[in-house]
Amino acid sequence: MDCTRPIGVFDSGIGGLTVVRALMERLPLERIVYFGDTARVPYGIKSVATIEHFTAQITDFLLQQDVKMLIIACNTMAAVAADVVRRRAGSIPVLDVIEGGARAAVSTSRRRGIAVIGTPTTVNSNAYARRMHELDPGVRVFSQACPLFVPLVEEGWLDHPVTQLTAEEYLKPVLAEEVDSLVLGCTHYPLLKPLLKRVVGPEVRLVDSALTTAELAAASLQALGIASVARVAAPYRFVVTDVPLRFQTIGERFLGRSLGAVEKVDW
Amino acid sequence: MDCTRPIGVFDSGIGGLTVVRALMERLPLERIVYFGDTARVPYGIKSVATIEHFTAQITDFLLQQDVKMLIIACNTMAAVAADVVRRRAGSIPVLDVIEGGARAAVSTSRRRGIAVIGTPTTVNSNAYARRMHELDPGVRVFSQACPLFVPLVEEGWLDHPVTQLTAEEYLKPVLAEEVDSLVLGCTHYPLLKPLLKRVVGPEVRLVDSALTTAELAAASLQALGIASVARVAAPYRFVVTDVPLRFQTIGERFLGRSLGAVEKVDW
Repeated sequence: MDCTRPIGVFDSGIGGLTVVRALMERLPLERIVYFGDTARVPYGIKSVATIEHFTAQITDFLLQQDVKMLIIACNTMAAVAADVVRRRAGSIPVLDVIEGGARAAVSTSRRRGIAVIGTPTTVNSNAYARRMHELDPGVRVFSQACPLFVPLVEEGWLDHPVTQLTAEEYLKPVLAEEVDSLVLGCTHYPLLKPLLKRVVGPEVRLVDSALTTAELAAASLQALGIASVARVAAPYRFVVTDVPLRFQTIGERFLGRSLGAVEKVDW
Repeated sequence: MDCTRPIGVFDSGIGGLTVVRALMERLPLERIVYFGDTARVPYGIKSVATIEHFTAQITDFLLQQDVKMLIIACNTMAAVAADVVRRRAGSIPVLDVIEGGARAAVSTSRRRGIAVIGTPTTVNSNAYARRMHELDPGVRVFSQACPLFVPLVEEGWLDHPVTQLTAEEYLKPVLAEEVDSLVLGCTHYPLLKPLLKRVVGPEVRLVDSALTTAELAAASLQALGIASVARVAAPYRFVVTDVPLRFQTIGERFLGRSLGAVEKVDW
């Protein structure tokens, strides 16, 4: 396989850019095509059938871009539609943020008590708990849906009393369970890290699946012998389904740098 | 025209059910077909081009259901895509919630100072201010986007400290402007009436465009001679684009009664 082919990364909207940011830092020589379904975002409150349908469309689009690897950078799609992606991808390797987050949490939790926060669809799917129990049957997993975190992040209220109060309310039940790790099971949540750290206290470690997914990608590319050997930093493409004005503004907050040109596809 | 034909009411999702509720109470003999685009909700953070495209699809669907009147029960669609609906509807009359809200606010404001709250797209469109200035050039209009109100209502936090704090923050600038009316420019907001009433105080009147739109519909049906003369309560149809589980649960909170069967269309 031609190792200069890009990695395809996709999300329901903007959140997956936290994964792109981690990939840019960990794998600066890799080309990336990012796809964000901004015309139909958010997915986290929609049904499994609808999410499967949207996910199949995005997968087909990225396969047409001749990607060498697919990364599902959306916990909701990873939770309920990863099989759809793998079936369509055939021999192209597929990674996802749930695998990354579940591995990292299980390998470092000492008290074997892990909390997972995410969108309602991610939490209802039970995908994190299932994967963590496969990796370690002795682990205790407590999940909590936090539907207001995504709109709060998109509003830019990253360190606001409203967000603090909301976090305290959502996290109260899981903190009562003596957990030592909190998995950020949604790609918007890394932007709330400083606030969440304050709410959970120093005893609880935050697991950011963007970072662990970038590590998993690096290891997989090496193992498969398809890591880029380019000598210059790689070009990036960003593709969305809605007019990219809002994506551009909010996206730079997620990416920590300028986005450059953003393409729009019409579906 | 056959006056037994249904009224078509549509919204990006669930919110328009507050208009259906007002129509059921004001016009109990009218048949209603409601369309909620739950697979692509919310619209309020999307671009005008995308909203126009989605709105055209919904309009065509309802025209195929042989409706005698169309009601745009979504402020965002009314703000940026009402022309799309009117062009496609031809001789079928089209009402919208912005017309209803603007008329009610202008006719009852004494101090000529009116605040409008809505989604970012509704507020950025300036549609309420434009319509109110047409009706009364002397009126002062102050607009404020409240993007967190929709997710807060859908979370069911109708009377929660987080919602109170959010409302205080959003409304501070408009309340500083000596307004005597607050237009609820989004169909989710009527569920926040008791809380908003507390935040704005007794001097400011809340204008609920669901109620005023139902009044406008009653007057228009009479004027056009197409009001139903049925002797029994009318049957209702609810059509959505996502699996209706969540629509059914949250929808009954909006409608104040059981929804019955909900149909799903595949697009």
